[in-house]
Amino acid sequence: MAHRIAFIGFGGVGQGLADIIQNQGEELLKKEGLELQVVAISDMMKGSLYHPEGLNLKVVHETLKSTGSLHSYPEEPGLIRGLDSIQTIKQSNADTIVEVTFTDVRTGQPAIDHCKAAFLSRKNVVTTNKGPIALAYRELSKLAKDNGVFFGFEGTVMSGTPALRMPRTTLAGNEISEIRGIFNGTCNYMLTRMEEGLSFDAALKEAQDLGFAEADPTNDLEGYDVRYKVVILANYVMGSSLTVEEVACQGMSHITTQDIVEAKQNGERWKLLGTLKKGKEGIIATVGPERLPLTDPLASISGATNAITYECSLAGPITLAGAGAGIKETGFSLLIDLIHFHREKKAVTT
Amino acid sequence: MAHRIAFIGFGGVGQGLADIIQNQGEELLKKEGLELQVVAISDMMKGSLYHPEGLNLKVVHETLKSTGSLHSYPEEPGLIRGLDSIQTIKQSNADTIVEVTFTDVRTGQPAIDHCKAAFLSRKNVVTTNKGPIALAYRELSKLAKDNGVFFGFEGTVMSGTPALRMPRTTLAGNEISEIRGIFNGTCNYMLTRMEEGLSFDAALKEAQDLGFAEADPTNDLEGYDVRYKVVILANYVMGSSLTVEEVACQGMSHITTQDIVEAKQNGERWKLLGTLKKGKEGIIATVGPERLPLTDPLASISGATNAITYECSLAGPITLAGAGAGIKETGFSLLIDLIHFHREKKAVTT
Repeated sequence: MAHRIAFIGFGGVGQGLADIIQNQGEELLKKEGLELQVVAISDMMKGSLYHPEGLNLKVVHETLKSTGSLHSYPEEPGLIRGLDSIQTIKQSNADTIVEVTFTDVRTGQPAIDHCKAAFLSRKNVVTTNKGPIALAYRELSKLAKDNGVFFGFEGTVMSGTPALRMPRTTLAGNEISEIRGIFNGTCNYMLTRMEEGLSFDAALKEAQDLGFAEADPTNDLEGYDVRYKVVILANYVMGSSLTVEEVACQGMSHITTQDIVEAKQNGERWKLLGTLKKGKEGIIATVGPERLPLTDPLASISGATNAITYECSLAGPITLAGAGAGIKETGFSLLIDLIHFHREKKAVTT
Repeated sequence: MAHRIAFIGFGGVGQGLADIIQNQGEELLKKEGLELQVVAISDMMKGSLYHPEGLNLKVVHETLKSTGSLHSYPEEPGLIRGLDSIQTIKQSNADTIVEVTFTDVRTGQPAIDHCKAAFLSRKNVVTTNKGPIALAYRELSKLAKDNGVFFGFEGTVMSGTPALRMPRTTLAGNEISEIRGIFNGTCNYMLTRMEEGLSFDAALKEAQDLGFAEADPTNDLEGYDVRYKVVILANYVMGSSLTVEEVACQGMSHITTQDIVEAKQNGERWKLLGTLKKGKEGIIATVGPERLPLTDPLASISGATNAITYECSLAGPITLAGAGAGIKETGFSLLIDLIHFHREKKAVTT
């Protein structure tokens, strides 16, 4: 039977997953026995469609491309228009809600309410929104568990690079004492370009022109984005209940080209790191720029790439590097959550 | 019920896993619900013990430490001594055979015969021996499947760094078009030290003194070790049926300090790489030294560390770096195979 999904929000990331489903649907069915069927899309700006027997993704794609909205998606028997996000979550026949709205990371809303509504309707959630995981992980994961549904959020840290699932799957059995990582592509891109001679302002402008940095880059440059990821890692990987307020956070806006040149002369390199360390009194977590020796695996991570090092009791230090953003990559992070859920379910029911 | 294991071979790697079981047994039971019980050890040199109700690992450890053999392990009712490896595999009540003998990598023996005997006795196998996987993967994995048992070999490539399982688990859904990696710690250590000024011979001697390189380093230096790993990756990750003979293989024994200095002056670095590329006519696989720009994530892998880059259709290039050897690390590779099997079984039976 097809696995029915509903998109709540349908910006780049949602469309990225929709493209993957459209292009690789047959392969997924063949390789994983997973048939994904999109039954609903509800987007504040673009409009809302629901058909219990599935939407035509090719037509959705063309409609959006030509008009920018879903309103001119062709009429057909059984098609329901205009359901808002909560109505779509509660009333659709979706098995899984793909929560990819524009969410305020400081409040986690509306994503948190969407997750809650989904779990209470016994629907799974996969999301790339950091807010719900950083701010309400314990509550939400308990609600999902109590309702017997799945909660996937691989894409909230390092996008489609599987940083979150690795310690719980292929590194299981290790005690992880420390985590360090480069979790913000904008900052790392800027630091790389500054080492190549650009000023802070020129590097920022370039990052903005390339679409890495937003018009207001505060969230990236002050380390707030990394701080959320650190909290997610603390909660999900290290099993603590760290809050955003407990992370000492320093940004990189005071780093000058001069600092970078000085580091280089000493065989070192500035990186904006998120770090977590298990101590006797819980986890000490920080965000801030650090000068790393070039022998540190994180020192060589250049451009917009992200990377994480797990200090493992048995396997030693393990570093994973890859994209930390991107429409296709983040679309994949949702897909791997869906595949993971499907495999778990298949194992239980066969 | 405890999961009963029998060690065939009990050198460093086997003892590494035994130490983990001894030290972390309670934690494994608590976290994974996995209770590992060692019922047999059969080693050509050290002797052979079998007790259907389990051996005392602490006493095994002490006996080995004080006498170098298992012969003076204390007598007790039910203890059987002297079974050879095939007898232990066939006659013991083990659920899983931990195959860690000294195996000739060119013939894959005696490990291949051990695997076959285990599968035909409906016992699982976990192993760190490259030979069986590089030379007989298809036959052995079919035999395991036909007999409904598990075959784990994460440690055959990059030791406890989970290079083999990652593409099939957390990166599932991607088409992998290319794989490149540093798979030999001895060569990478030597290249790192040569860049720091040592001659080839001095770097080799240092690697031998540190225990990285063997007395006869041919297997490492001529790329033969990497070639086996390339074949394992081709078969297991890329689903081909590449043979050792089909891999173009060049070693690093002709690389001089002068070559390394020249590369450095051009912002590049020599690395001994194993590469696999999917083409129209199958997989093209090579082993050989390459000059990499410093921006390549593999260029910065220093010392005895190993690393692999997977070119993924959706997630982009993903690099994993970590130890490629070590007693604890390789012991962990066996543990993660056991955990993985246990989780699969648990999912099916609960």
